[in-house]
Amino acid sequence: MSEPKDPAAPLADWLRARYGEAIPAVAAQNDTLRSMARHRTMRHYLDRPVDPALVRTLCAVALAAPSKSDLQQADIVIVEDAGQRAALAALLPDNPWARAAPAFLVFCGNNRRQRRVHELRGHGFANDHLDAFFNAAVEAGIVLGTFVAAAESLGLATCPISAIRNHADEVAKVLTLPPHVFPVAGLCVGWPSGFTAMTPRLPLAATIHTDRHDDTALDAHIAEYDARRDAEKPLRARRRDDLFGAHQPYTWSEDKARQYAQPERTGWGAFVRRIGFRLD
Amino acid sequence: MSEPKDPAAPLADWLRARYGEAIPAVAAQNDTLRSMARHRTMRHYLDRPVDPALVRTLCAVALAAPSKSDLQQADIVIVEDAGQRAALAALLPDNPWARAAPAFLVFCGNNRRQRRVHELRGHGFANDHLDAFFNAAVEAGIVLGTFVAAAESLGLATCPISAIRNHADEVAKVLTLPPHVFPVAGLCVGWPSGFTAMTPRLPLAATIHTDRHDDTALDAHIAEYDARRDAEKPLRARRRDDLFGAHQPYTWSEDKARQYAQPERTGWGAFVRRIGFRLD
Repeated sequence: MSEPKDPAAPLADWLRARYGEAIPAVAAQNDTLRSMARHRTMRHYLDRPVDPALVRTLCAVALAAPSKSDLQQADIVIVEDAGQRAALAALLPDNPWARAAPAFLVFCGNNRRQRRVHELRGHGFANDHLDAFFNAAVEAGIVLGTFVAAAESLGLATCPISAIRNHADEVAKVLTLPPHVFPVAGLCVGWPSGFTAMTPRLPLAATIHTDRHDDTALDAHIAEYDARRDAEKPLRARRRDDLFGAHQPYTWSEDKARQYAQPERTGWGAFVRRIGFRLD
Repeated sequence: MSEPKDPAAPLADWLRARYGEAIPAVAAQNDTLRSMARHRTMRHYLDRPVDPALVRTLCAVALAAPSKSDLQQADIVIVEDAGQRAALAALLPDNPWARAAPAFLVFCGNNRRQRRVHELRGHGFANDHLDAFFNAAVEAGIVLGTFVAAAESLGLATCPISAIRNHADEVAKVLTLPPHVFPVAGLCVGWPSGFTAMTPRLPLAATIHTDRHDDTALDAHIAEYDARRDAEKPLRARRRDDLFGAHQPYTWSEDKARQYAQPERTGWGAFVRRIGFRLD
């Protein structure tokens, strides 16, 4: 089922369009939930600036999101300078929207403040293992997700750019990221130009579990999703037919398997260790 | 400055209370932003159930959040069964609200589906390195943050539980998590009982950067925050005075340095490797 025409359509209609199944109707719903349910990544923007005060306000709203043990381990770099924008855009040739977006931000994990707190208070940091990196990464994700939800609720369009990590050393140099601070994702922000259809998602039986995790029906869920997605929002850009052949239909699972059949970000772990993290 | 009395107070008032500084006023604001700006973790709940259909709806809304490369790598386990709840609560003796909360969920990263897609399509997975784990962890964070924002917009109270990872092997056993699926955080959900004050946050100059990351004023930012926080929401529960002495005032930085001066989750990396991840 395709998405409703009216942005104010009931939440259940948005969720049915997203997941291809009926969700039990609940009385509680509001504009926040409807906006989140309507989420879509948008890569085309009007030639109209986003007020810098609004960007900063959205950052402040996003940084109010939950913080693990109150450690506040996420940073946001707002990239405004044209030279800085160009230096980042040059690292993202496959993401031309990163150059074109009226506003561009980089969400970072920051475990440096915590380590400095230990130095200042004279208590040794006894947790120099995977958890330190993990907590900062997840927190940056929480702040990013909150920013996107906040921005979309105002009608803004966003596009996260994880390719920012494809060249983490260069990005860290451009943004002068110090040790123990790492980029998680860039984010394009602008006012949307044109219509972008909502992307269907896997059936909820694949992602929501009750009491125990159970994915015994995973193959069937993937097949159902491939078919539904191909019917509602077929993938147009094909990857590497030269290498893999012109498989038909060109499904989500075919596309994802082709994407990750080729190495990506193989230097990410080495970068993370180079900036000071132990991942034991 | 303490928080406004009226939940519908202007966004700028909420942000000023949160960060201790004036934020340039913007015309664009709405209930979504105000609710996010008012965020607080709440650990005390009314003895009133949360409609299971509402919990499921909030999960569906949260799973509509941005997904890296559309890989959909987050899962949610809704734990309803009393025996399952008790088994998890027994692992969380320092989090009694995990036992008392009307609803309890576990947010997981799932890199298993992606690997299965490769098997189904016959294209080898060429990215068995840190990035695979990282992407699933960040995505679970995005979904968790979105869930919390959605729930709070309806007046629900939540409390994330990262201590769920203190006993990751046992949690994985209770929830029958398969290889390449890992818990990121638990989440208590209920209708709030009583008032919980908003927690101030670091000044935005510490967490928002323009064009380049710059934390040369970090020590001053921490000192300012320690003082502001002690004035507005002093920390009451002191950690390990027996070990560290009765330092006064008992500031945020003192508390955090004490918390992480003692090892926590040292087995997390070993668990992650044991369930199949390479973190190279």
